[in-house]
Amino acid sequence: MALIVQKYGGTSVGTPERIQHVARRVARAQAEGHQVVVVVSAMSGETNRLIALSRGITANPDPRELDVVVSTGEQVTIGLLCMALHAIGVKAKSYTGAQVRILTDSAHTKARILSIDGTTLRRDLEAGHVVVVAGFQGVDGAGNITTLGRGGSDTTGVALAAALQADECQIYTDVDGVYTTDPRIVPEARKLERITFEEMLEMASLGSKVLQIRSVEFAGKYKVKLRVLSSFAEGGEGTLITTEDERPMEQPIISGIAFNRDEAKLTVLGVPDKPGTAYCILGPIAEANIDVDMIIQNVSHDGTTDLSCTVSRGDHDRAMAILEQVREQIGARDILSDTTMAKVSIVGVGMRSHPGVASLMFRTLAAESINIQMISTSEIKISVVIDEKYLELAVRVLHKAFGLDGVAS
Amino acid sequence: MALIVQKYGGTSVGTPERIQHVARRVARAQAEGHQVVVVVSAMSGETNRLIALSRGITANPDPRELDVVVSTGEQVTIGLLCMALHAIGVKAKSYTGAQVRILTDSAHTKARILSIDGTTLRRDLEAGHVVVVAGFQGVDGAGNITTLGRGGSDTTGVALAAALQADECQIYTDVDGVYTTDPRIVPEARKLERITFEEMLEMASLGSKVLQIRSVEFAGKYKVKLRVLSSFAEGGEGTLITTEDERPMEQPIISGIAFNRDEAKLTVLGVPDKPGTAYCILGPIAEANIDVDMIIQNVSHDGTTDLSCTVSRGDHDRAMAILEQVREQIGARDILSDTTMAKVSIVGVGMRSHPGVASLMFRTLAAESINIQMISTSEIKISVVIDEKYLELAVRVLHKAFGLDGVAS
Repeated sequence: MALIVQKYGGTSVGTPERIQHVARRVARAQAEGHQVVVVVSAMSGETNRLIALSRGITANPDPRELDVVVSTGEQVTIGLLCMALHAIGVKAKSYTGAQVRILTDSAHTKARILSIDGTTLRRDLEAGHVVVVAGFQGVDGAGNITTLGRGGSDTTGVALAAALQADECQIYTDVDGVYTTDPRIVPEARKLERITFEEMLEMASLGSKVLQIRSVEFAGKYKVKLRVLSSFAEGGEGTLITTEDERPMEQPIISGIAFNRDEAKLTVLGVPDKPGTAYCILGPIAEANIDVDMIIQNVSHDGTTDLSCTVSRGDHDRAMAILEQVREQIGARDILSDTTMAKVSIVGVGMRSHPGVASLMFRTLAAESINIQMISTSEIKISVVIDEKYLELAVRVLHKAFGLDGVAS
Repeated sequence: MALIVQKYGGTSVGTPERIQHVARRVARAQAEGHQVVVVVSAMSGETNRLIALSRGITANPDPRELDVVVSTGEQVTIGLLCMALHAIGVKAKSYTGAQVRILTDSAHTKARILSIDGTTLRRDLEAGHVVVVAGFQGVDGAGNITTLGRGGSDTTGVALAAALQADECQIYTDVDGVYTTDPRIVPEARKLERITFEEMLEMASLGSKVLQIRSVEFAGKYKVKLRVLSSFAEGGEGTLITTEDERPMEQPIISGIAFNRDEAKLTVLGVPDKPGTAYCILGPIAEANIDVDMIIQNVSHDGTTDLSCTVSRGDHDRAMAILEQVREQIGARDILSDTTMAKVSIVGVGMRSHPGVASLMFRTLAAESINIQMISTSEIKISVVIDEKYLELAVRVLHKAFGLDGVAS
């Protein structure tokens, strides 16, 4: 008998019929002899409806009260799912974040979990109940309702699995696992049986939207076995996200290819090469709450250097305006920008022990005359920024070059 | 400076605009120097939507889980109202029933309030906050969410006023007070400045839907000054519901005329007049959960008597089927029934000290050739059952005969 945490997203519980479908899946897991904790999101569209309702009152709703309103979305789902479980003869009990006592800090709309009291849930599980917990929400020390921010339901699932020392945390979603790359671009893309936390983190941060980055970090930190499964397809094993040492010995060097279309590049030319200029340039951008992705600065010539960074396209105009002001202050020569950029990354823990991965990547792209504009590397990832029009081509040729087409992992 | 509890029903908070309107009214009360506690219902239609959603899952939703789902309706309103208050510069904080700690028993969907902890609310009020509390809901000793049943928001308002020793509990609704009778039937009907708890109870139980009976009982018991006001019209004083000794000396004998169209009469003829037969007849009806209103049995002739009772029209067929079975068991002669009955009642504490009220009522009806089929009296009320077609006429002539037409109370 195992203790399993199952998390179902908004699409999976989007209608009464789908909630009944989830109930049957939960019942099956229990019938197989497992103790089951279920974490659910709000029905799809519900969170947006509640936010729109709040914005109908005021453009800037008070964060504490926004949490009070928005947290009702998951509360409705836990009640409905328990009703559906009762209807098919399964004992079940629902819990809001406050009722479990998922204790968070007081950062309304983006709270962080501090601790989870598993006592009540364990007692219910021992008594043969399925326990259904509202995702995305908690309670602070003063009893205020908090929410964890978008995607927080994944985090709730992983945190509960950690607190209850569950054998596995299953994330049900509308895809049936993690793929080597987007099958819409490369039909030969394969589902991965396993992927490491580190690889998953890189894939997620590069635009693979299967899991929230925060929940993967959390799972890695607390060694929670995480599995991504489809809530619609039956019988699949999904993708297990796990630590490196649990993977088979023989692994392809690269696990997957991620990409992000939503990139804009900004380059400050002729920056005086002295201490503090990088901060002068990037500080004001960070203060404006603009997320900077890549930052590249190369060696200087003649006492000046060029500094490039990438931001989301939606932030391009604001970032440009800030840099124009900065340019005058620091006496830089000019600013270039380009909003038709895309980023392609190869990800894999195998590259640590295999030299020549970068050169294979660059050679493959060169063979197709794809110009590389920026390069950034980490331990298990190499990212290049290229012209957006070459994106699909680049992903396809890299997928093939690294032997990912149709090979069992 | 007074401490005022204001309760707004679903219609009063039915749209974002109406919530903003309520916020302005609350702000005005605070600007006048009062401490204000606001109790709100779910936005109109919301509770029904949530119930329908639950019934979409299963015909008989688990009561505990139904409370989890349905209680979200008021939770949304408290958050939205606080946002609206913040937007006009009023400090405000929302509380669910569990957060206040409105402790109830565990009778889900119809829980009763056991106690209210006013500590936190008092602290917020002292700090200059408006406190906004979700009506209709509480929490049981084990931390389960409970609801008080339909109309429970009025009860929450009164219970909070009692717990906080508020100076007045104002119930905002879509009428501007309690009337001598329904103005749609008698255009001369007047709004009452004051009415006693006992009278209000009789009026409410007879079909005047202004206030929930439970909240009036509660207010009477804890001596909470209750005022019914319109949330749409400005400036009115509404109707104050108060104890008898606070009324002016000179009072009309009758305060109002209530009526109920939804009556069906059942008569068992030739019932053997021996101990236990009334129970034999009415016991099975009660067991079938049919609410019996009037019960009339007169003195017997020849060892048999006739027993009549009234039920809601919707219950008529079921009650009839039960009585048919009972008739055979007890050897009664026959059963008569009539589903076109109506009840008219005159209500007033004045009748206690004024003899002749009943005879004036009967004479007035006789003058219009309205036949009285059943009579039932209490300390402060006389009800008669008549043919439905005479209902409007009866109300009009009684309203005039008892001097209620256009006289200031």
